[in-house]
Amino acid sequence: MTNTFSISDMAKAARAASRKMARCPTHQKNTLLRHMADLIESNADRIQTENRKDIAYAHTKGLSAAMIDRLTVSGDTIRSMSEGLRDVASLPDPVSEITRVWNRPNGLQVSKMRIPLGVIAIIYESRPNVTIDAAGLCLKAGNAAILRGGSEALHSNQVLADIIRMALSQSGLPLDAAQVIPVRDRSAVTDLLQLEEFIDLVIPRGGEGLIRFVVENSRIPVLKHYKGVCHVYVDDTAELDMALSISMNAKVQRPGVCNSMETLLVHRSMAETFLPLMAKSMQNAGVELRGCAESCHMIPGMIPATEADWPTEYNDLILSVKVVSGMDEAISHIETYGSSHTEAIVTRDYERARRFIREVDSSVVLVNASTRFNDGHQLGLGAEIGISTTKLHAFGPMGLEELTAAKFVVMGDGQIRT
Amino acid sequence: MTNTFSISDMAKAARAASRKMARCPTHQKNTLLRHMADLIESNADRIQTENRKDIAYAHTKGLSAAMIDRLTVSGDTIRSMSEGLRDVASLPDPVSEITRVWNRPNGLQVSKMRIPLGVIAIIYESRPNVTIDAAGLCLKAGNAAILRGGSEALHSNQVLADIIRMALSQSGLPLDAAQVIPVRDRSAVTDLLQLEEFIDLVIPRGGEGLIRFVVENSRIPVLKHYKGVCHVYVDDTAELDMALSISMNAKVQRPGVCNSMETLLVHRSMAETFLPLMAKSMQNAGVELRGCAESCHMIPGMIPATEADWPTEYNDLILSVKVVSGMDEAISHIETYGSSHTEAIVTRDYERARRFIREVDSSVVLVNASTRFNDGHQLGLGAEIGISTTKLHAFGPMGLEELTAAKFVVMGDGQIRT
Repeated sequence: MTNTFSISDMAKAARAASRKMARCPTHQKNTLLRHMADLIESNADRIQTENRKDIAYAHTKGLSAAMIDRLTVSGDTIRSMSEGLRDVASLPDPVSEITRVWNRPNGLQVSKMRIPLGVIAIIYESRPNVTIDAAGLCLKAGNAAILRGGSEALHSNQVLADIIRMALSQSGLPLDAAQVIPVRDRSAVTDLLQLEEFIDLVIPRGGEGLIRFVVENSRIPVLKHYKGVCHVYVDDTAELDMALSISMNAKVQRPGVCNSMETLLVHRSMAETFLPLMAKSMQNAGVELRGCAESCHMIPGMIPATEADWPTEYNDLILSVKVVSGMDEAISHIETYGSSHTEAIVTRDYERARRFIREVDSSVVLVNASTRFNDGHQLGLGAEIGISTTKLHAFGPMGLEELTAAKFVVMGDGQIRT
Repeated sequence: MTNTFSISDMAKAARAASRKMARCPTHQKNTLLRHMADLIESNADRIQTENRKDIAYAHTKGLSAAMIDRLTVSGDTIRSMSEGLRDVASLPDPVSEITRVWNRPNGLQVSKMRIPLGVIAIIYESRPNVTIDAAGLCLKAGNAAILRGGSEALHSNQVLADIIRMALSQSGLPLDAAQVIPVRDRSAVTDLLQLEEFIDLVIPRGGEGLIRFVVENSRIPVLKHYKGVCHVYVDDTAELDMALSISMNAKVQRPGVCNSMETLLVHRSMAETFLPLMAKSMQNAGVELRGCAESCHMIPGMIPATEADWPTEYNDLILSVKVVSGMDEAISHIETYGSSHTEAIVTRDYERARRFIREVDSSVVLVNASTRFNDGHQLGLGAEIGISTTKLHAFGPMGLEELTAAKFVVMGDGQIRT
């Protein structure tokens, strides 16, 4: 907040701190996370006082009720931040883990050892709890973090940054291991994205606009999540009740999130029995149905889908429905309109289950289970920092392991090349 | 070579071909590689005729003898291309490999399955054999490849592209699975680097200028190798003969490559015995020595090193030498001047070996072995497409596995989220 703020000094300090974090023993990192959790609880009033300044500012800016809701730090937010940190403290440390060892004919023993990535920048939008969740995961994996939340959350993020620094200090760790960018100016982000020398990875979390901005302006590698246009394909061998239950869960359990279903594909031989039951349940749950010509013909009240519907992530109680002739058309529809996020098949056919698994090119592919399981906690990663929908480095939910790299370690007794 | 050439059509065709390649069974991919090998041998004359056109062009352009040497396709080059392909055919197929399986309390079985990355663009300089080596590795890992060699190698690369197409056709695979950009114009590369939608990864291979150009202009993720400033640290507990043998091998066995040693760090207590012997051997092998003040004082004929020497990749018979007070100074020197490529320690001390392995942040860290082992063949990866010196996705030599990603596969019996 001073005139002397320099994003490049911040990044340099993060690089130096990352070297110390990389060597930090597991117990010290766990102590750090538990100190953070305690300090969040003991400073709850102070956090909420600062948060109210952001909320007041948001009102003067005329932000939407939904935005203000995301910005608000409630008692539940406080609890969920500290419990999240204690959970991460109890997860295994990925750093120094040996994932594979093999021997060479000349007697060299080669292994791969997990190491921290180094410095990770997280660029996100309004929720202040991301400051704590992201810092906790980055630090546990031995990295330094540079955090940049939404400009509307600046006071909240600054007080959380202060708490992290107190915890780093109590734990004898470098104060620059987690830093929040203290200015609202967007040019700080543009400048940050050029600092390839000091920052190893950028993770943007937020709307497609933010993510495209980061990808287009970054020289640093980006792990990104564009959108989740998730499909469920109900095969003609599907068990009717299971198909209904998975479809309903995938659509209505939490329609605003990326792993909810946006398009339901139904085998033609199944359509006549399945579609009316599905439509009734969906309509009872308040879901607006937009269908292909064939399904509109079968279901009264269904709105004709247009070409614009198929690639759309509604994030809402809206579902597009298409009758397909079988696996070929289902897979081809997913290839054309999907987002490589999450797709599920409901089937009793062994061959088709195998084919769907092999041929569908998404970060999570499920057989007879809801798309809502694409989530770090649900899949057993312990916690997640986001979901990647591009394939490099990580594809799907990213946990602690995805915040590490691996180096080769070679042990010899004097071997040379001839 | 025609007016109608469009880089974006090429990339679209590659994307479509990549979907077919991703589903191609292992035996068919191996047959493809063996067809390529046979066709290279049976078309050796044609390849060399086209190659002579490039060499003639290179002479008119006044290219250096070293450049012309790299450009030349000899009988040995032909043999090494076809043997390389047959070797890759015999390697295990990484695609569909399940790397981990675990169960969730709700009965879901979760696994990680390797899948191809999709479309890989390789941008390289003068050696035409890279066209074949890179295409072979990309195709074996189920990817499509877009290849862009040096403009001086255009005729050679075009005939090799033609041979790859013949082999794809003989194997019943899509002809667009490996394409060579048929124009010299550099803007084709700039355009290619924007096609994030169709291309998943770019691997530049060549000098630092080429690599920086790609990083600065690409929206597509880049796997890159900036430089190899490799260090050997001779600890005071090192066995003298082993330290000499490893140092000599690391410097002189092939000084022009990235994994050769550029800087030798020597523990002060070892300097008096080790440096004179090392200097004599190095000088006998024609190595120019550039030393810190302390080593210059001990070794007659050593040139004083300047600050500019420490971060320099000589790629030549030149070695910088520094006396250090111990592990702390050695590791700190590597952190300051190294390139995260390859570092080795020579020691008999258990604790120091462990500390060097843990704390040195390079893609390959060796104990009592030559830096020259940072190589896909030497480390047992079978073949390599390059060495990555940044940590995301791959760090160190990249084999077939590094040309794949992994998706989550979830098998259930109707599970939904509650």
